[in-house]
Order: sequence, then C-alpha cells, then structure tokens
Amino acid sequence: MQKLNDQIADALARVREQKPLLHHITNYVVMNDTANVTLHIGALPVMAHAAEEVEEMVGYAGALVLNPGTLSSEWIASMFLAGHRAGARGVPIVLDPVGAGATAFRTLTFLRMLRDLKVTVLRGNAGEIGALSGAGGAVKGVESVGELEDRPGVTRHLAQSAKLVVAMSGKRDYVSDGERLLGVDNGDKWLTTLTGTGCMSTTMIGAFAAVEKDPVVAAVGGYAAFGLAAELAAPQAHGPATFKVAFFDALYHLSPEQLAKGARIVDLSAGQA
Amino acid sequence: MQKLNDQIADALARVREQKPLLHHITNYVVMNDTANVTLHIGALPVMAHAAEEVEEMVGYAGALVLNPGTLSSEWIASMFLAGHRAGARGVPIVLDPVGAGATAFRTLTFLRMLRDLKVTVLRGNAGEIGALSGAGGAVKGVESVGELEDRPGVTRHLAQSAKLVVAMSGKRDYVSDGERLLGVDNGDKWLTTLTGTGCMSTTMIGAFAAVEKDPVVAAVGGYAAFGLAAELAAPQAHGPATFKVAFFDALYHLSPEQLAKGARIVDLSAGQA
Amino acid sequence: MQKLNDQIADALARVREQKPLLHHITNYVVMNDTANVTLHIGALPVMAHAAEEVEEMVGYAGALVLNPGTLSSEWIASMFLAGHRAGARGVPIVLDPVGAGATAFRTLTFLRMLRDLKVTVLRGNAGEIGALSGAGGAVKGVESVGELEDRPGVTRHLAQSAKLVVAMSGKRDYVSDGERLLGVDNGDKWLTTLTGTGCMSTTMIGAFAAVEKDPVVAAVGGYAAFGLAAELAAPQAHGPATFKVAFFDALYHLSPEQLAKGARIVDLSAGQA
Repeated sequence: MQKLNDQIADALARVREQKPLLHHITNYVVMNDTANVTLHIGALPVMAHAAEEVEEMVGYAGALVLNPGTLSSEWIASMFLAGHRAGARGVPIVLDPVGAGATAFRTLTFLRMLRDLKVTVLRGNAGEIGALSGAGGAVKGVESVGELEDRPGVTRHLAQSAKLVVAMSGKRDYVSDGERLLGVDNGDKWLTTLTGTGCMSTTMIGAFAAVEKDPVVAAVGGYAAFGLAAELAAPQAHGPATFKVAFFDALYHLSPEQLAKGARIVDLSAGQA
Repeated sequence: MQKLNDQIADALARVREQKPLLHHITNYVVMNDTANVTLHIGALPVMAHAAEEVEEMVGYAGALVLNPGTLSSEWIASMFLAGHRAGARGVPIVLDPVGAGATAFRTLTFLRMLRDLKVTVLRGNAGEIGALSGAGGAVKGVESVGELEDRPGVTRHLAQSAKLVVAMSGKRDYVSDGERLLGVDNGDKWLTTLTGTGCMSTTMIGAFAAVEKDPVVAAVGGYAAFGLAAELAAPQAHGPATFKVAFFDALYHLSPEQLAKGARIVDLSAGQA
Repeated sequence: MQKLNDQIADALARVREQKPLLHHITNYVVMNDTANVTLHIGALPVMAHAAEEVEEMVGYAGALVLNPGTLSSEWIASMFLAGHRAGARGVPIVLDPVGAGATAFRTLTFLRMLRDLKVTVLRGNAGEIGALSGAGGAVKGVESVGELEDRPGVTRHLAQSAKLVVAMSGKRDYVSDGERLLGVDNGDKWLTTLTGTGCMSTTMIGAFAAVEKDPVVAAVGGYAAFGLAAELAAPQAHGPATFKVAFFDALYHLSPEQLAKGARIVDLSAGQA
C-alpha cells in the first residue's frame, strides 16, 4: 500500500500548507478538543451553528463537519441548512452519527440526514454504523457495545446502499465506498479511555477531505494520521490524561514523512477481510 | 468504619464491572471533564438534553445526573421530563444545584426540582446547600463564600425535611439521610483551584448510585474515591493543570483495594460533629 | 514604563485579594478554559446566559465578559440584557468580537453591540478589529489572516471613533483609548497553536478591569500577565498540550513582583509606532 501511504502523506502536507477552514456544527462535549485537533493537524476551526450564518460560513469552508452528539431540533435545522448549502457548493460533508441506535430521535434524524444531504463520509463506531445499516449492533449511550458480525461487510454494504463512503472505527478501522474496502490498523488502546476520540477522528477526516478529492483516501488518511499520533504518544502515557497531552503534541508534530512510513493500511477489496 | 470502606470498595468494583450508563443533563462548562471522569471511574457517559429523547435515554441509564449550572428554560424543561421518567422507573437522580442562592431564578428552579422530582442525592457546596435549606450561606457566582454555621447540622436538617440524601462538599464532606450523618475527609487543596470539581464529584456520586442501592453509601463512596484520587495525584502537581492531569490518571487507576484502605470516613450520627 | 509596570502589578495583587466575580456570557468552545483562567489569575467565574437571570447576576459582577463566538439570537438577546444592566450600574464590559468579518451576522451583531452598549474594552485580533473599523483585515473563520496595514493606527482610530478602549492582539499587542497608544510585547508563539487563547486574554482583561478603573491599564495588564505566563511556560513545552498545562500552572503562580519586572510595555502615544 505504499502508493496509498504516499497519497495520504501528500494530503497531510496540503492540509498544513493550505490551512483549510473546517466548519463544525458539533456537540458541546468535544468542541474544545476538536477545535484543538483541527489546529494541531494544520487546519483552521470555526464552530458556528446559528441559522442566520451557517449558510454563509460554509461557503468559506473546505469541509463541513456535522456532529449531532448533543442534538436539539434547532441545531439539527442548522445542520440541514448548512448541509444543503455545502452540497450545492461541492463542500464535502463528514457526518458523525453519535449515538445512532441509542434513541429513536437520534436514529431517525441521522437517517434523514443520510437521505437528504450529500454526505461525503459517514464515520461512526460499529454500533452506530450497524444501527444505521439495519444490520444490528448495540449502543449504550454513545458507546458501541456487544458484537457486530462482519464489520467490513456491513461497512461496504452501507456504503453501497447509501452511496457514500463509510468509515467504521474499531481496533481495525474500515473504510469503503461500496467497491473498495480498506483497513487501517493504526491506533492505541488509550484512545478508548477518553471521551470524544471518535469525534476527533471525524474532524481529522474532515481536514483530509478538505484537501483531497477522493473521500476514501481522505478517510484512510484521517484514520491513519490519528492512529499513528496515538502510537507515538503511547510511550509517554501513565493514564488517560497524560496520554491526551502527549497525543495532542504528537498530532501537532506529525510529519508527512512519518505518516508515509507509519501508516498501516490493508487492502481488503478482494474480500479477504 | 472498615465495614463502610469495604462497602464502597465493593461498589467501585461493581462500577468497573457493570459499566452503568450515566445520563447527564449538565452544564456546558464541565461537559468534557465530567464525561472523562465518568469513563475514568469505569462508567459510560451520555450527554443528551433534547426533549425529544431524554425520556427514552434515561430509561437505559443507571443514574440521571442533573447539573443546571448553565440553565435555561428549555434545558430545565428537559430536566423535568427526564427526572419524572427517572422517578417513575426507579433510576436514581443526583442533583447539583450549581449557584443556588446566586440568583432567584436558580434558587427557585432548584427548589421546584426538589419539590417535584424524586431526587436521590442533592450535592452542593455549603453556600448552595445553605441557600436551599434556608439556613443562609453565601454564594458568589457559583462559589461558596463566607461561613455557614453548623454544616453537619444543616446537612442533616435539609436531608430530614426534604426526605433525600444531602451531600455537602468542603474540607470535610458531610453526607446525611436525616438519620445517619457521615464525614469524608479525603481530598486535596488543589481541587479548589480548578473549575468544575464540584460537578465532577456529583458525577462520581452518580456512578456509585448507579450500582449501590443505599444512597448514603453511594455519596460517601463517590466523595471518598474522588478525594483519594486527588490525594494520590497531589505529589505530582506543580499547579492546577499538572494536578488535573495527574488526578484524571489517578481516577482511572484507582482500585477497590486502594479505596478500602484509603477512604477516611467518620461516623457523626451520634452528634459528635 | 516602570510606573505602568507597577500599576499593573498592583492591579494583579488586587485581583488576587478581592477575587472579583467575572460574569461571562461566552462561547461553548472556551467555557472550561476561560473559567479556569479566571480562577488561576485569582478571580471567580460564573457562566450564566438565561434571560431570566443575567440582569440579576451582572449586578454582583466586577466585570461582564461578552464573547459571542458561538452566537445565536437567544444568546445575543441575553448579552444585550446583561450589557444594558452593566452599563447602568457601572460594571465594565469587555467584548470579544469573535469572527467579526467572517459573516454578515457576526459583523452586524457586533457593530450593534458597539453602538448600543457601553463597552469598556473591545479585544480582538487584527482581522476582527479591522473588520469592525472599516479598515479591512481578513478573517478565515475566527482566525486573522493576511496583513492589516498600520495596526497601531487602526487601533487608535477605532478607539477614537467608538469612544472606548481597543485592544488588538498580535505579536505586539496594541492598546489605545484614542489618545494613549501602548504596545505589549509579552507572549510566545505556542499561544497561536491553541484554540481560545484570544478568548482567554479577553478574560484576563476582564479580571483586571474588575479592579482597575483605567481601562487602558486593565487591558495592558491583562495582556502583559497573559503573555508573561506564556513566556514562563514555554521552556516546558514539547507541543501545544504540554504548553497549555505549563501555561495554566504559570498563570496560577504569577506574582505581582514577576509582573512588575517582566512586563514589556512600550509607549507609542507620540506616534513612533
């Protein structure tokens, strides 16, 4: 996969050079963390949710990150306003369906987003993607619990049926556009001890999508860069908080060269998942 | 108090084993911190406030944490929706009356909650508990200032009259159900230099209440575990931020054995406060 | 400038002694950070935005910090309610026009605030101040990009025309009331790698304004204390997150003596900018 490694390394270099604006309409829990992740990887964050400005703001954005983790009807309305404008202007949309499957309100809202908006990448955990695909999968609040059979298969199938790129997070992350199916093996267990790491990885995919036309490459790049920074930080961790500090520092310093060398991507397109 | 020490150690073991869902409807300032505290102690956080989903969400929860620190009428309405459902289903409610006494809006809202909801544990500082008890106590914003006479007496009296467990934070924390009165002496002065440590201790009590039927034991356990982690972290602190990092790491690593040994609980029921 | 250095050192001593309440109506991204900055410098934070309580709350405040970084119509209405009351009671108002120039909604809202409220200090980056002054300046989301000609001149001109103190952040911070023009050279490049550092400096100015009648001295003091803490923290930084931890610790420990000695203020009033 050296070609893909080089492609994502090149994309990271473009993020740092072009500093694209990432327009987030996101949840309260992670706003500070995702704004910092955006800056550390080289892009510029803006959090803006007012109906009066989201359509104008998204016009300046390299990507739109929709993360309805603390959703309400007003915020959802703004997400649709921004999403429709993004679709009309060709701004890629990355959607994080936080807690899909946890309540009917969440599941139905996210299905409506998938139906009505031109979502470029849908990134969630196994429980969330399972719930939206109809394949099952269990969610406890916003955490994936229990087992989901055939994660790569569910990823590819939902990508096919919904006509977008699906990114399913886990020990191995899966990315598919319905044809191609890739696995990303970067990461570290400390990521599972912190709130919002899924949301942060969505932001990372947004940063890559802002500079990279192929959303499969963007999703793989976001995952690999995120996971590699975690690996580089892990030796300094004595617990979740020392890990987080080291991880944010590592994201800031992550170079395209490190990414080209350290990304661990596997091609599963032929079905050998 | 070795029996109580063993009880709270056992409760901590159950939190880590059962991973109960803590449904928070909480303030913007502390959402990230309380979500991380929830994870670090072994439970699962979900922050959800939409009227459309709070009743369904709380049905899956081990405890409901209501923290109206940045209250508005919409969020209060959702807190009542979730609180009524929690009461009907036997889900324990932990209420943090942030800034009671600071404005009439806050004080009256919290008194209405105490009147209409089945609050299991009310946790606040001396100023807040004093304001709600009618005993006086002064609040400056959300900080307790000035002196409150007879803190243990006010704690026990409010518990009696409101028919719930009251937990009053301070150098010595007091817990009472109106009959029993206990003091918890764990803690460290660095906790007072950070925002949201009161809110975090409320979350801790919520985690214990989710697995422990006796709310006095839950409140004492949450306080002791929180304070003991602070004591373990203090030697690494050079200031508030290094303390916070070490504290979160310590919470993550805190074992039932450490808690059984390190909890410093005193029984004041006989009146020797 | 030793006299000014002594004045701001004296103001810092008063913050730590008087512990003024800073009423923030601020954005979701930075609430936790600005609450901690408030505590670390010695003041008390309260975040309260409900229309039902902001007028009462601001009556107890030493200063009102308005930071509409994630503005919505409801929050703006509360900012006006609180702002009018603050003006009537002589409570200083510090306004942070986050993202002025990014959207018409922002720019027009902030101009309306400048017109209708008695703003004491307006603190922003070059892009934001440029947009509000009509001098140009470019904003990408909430970041200042591109060049603004004659920053000190724009600072002084807007101060004159709007009849308030303007504080423009940058490598050299400028402060003017339309007559006096001062530069503050404290700071460190790590500050630019973190989200919310502009907002934090606004909070710092709020803390100084709560105890210092001359808003030029308050703005210079807030800037110098903030920048000096960054300088003291920089040697411990390996990246943005280790910097942030060291910076918050340094803010907590910053003494009036250090500030008197370390503040680097230049008087540009005579025009030698």
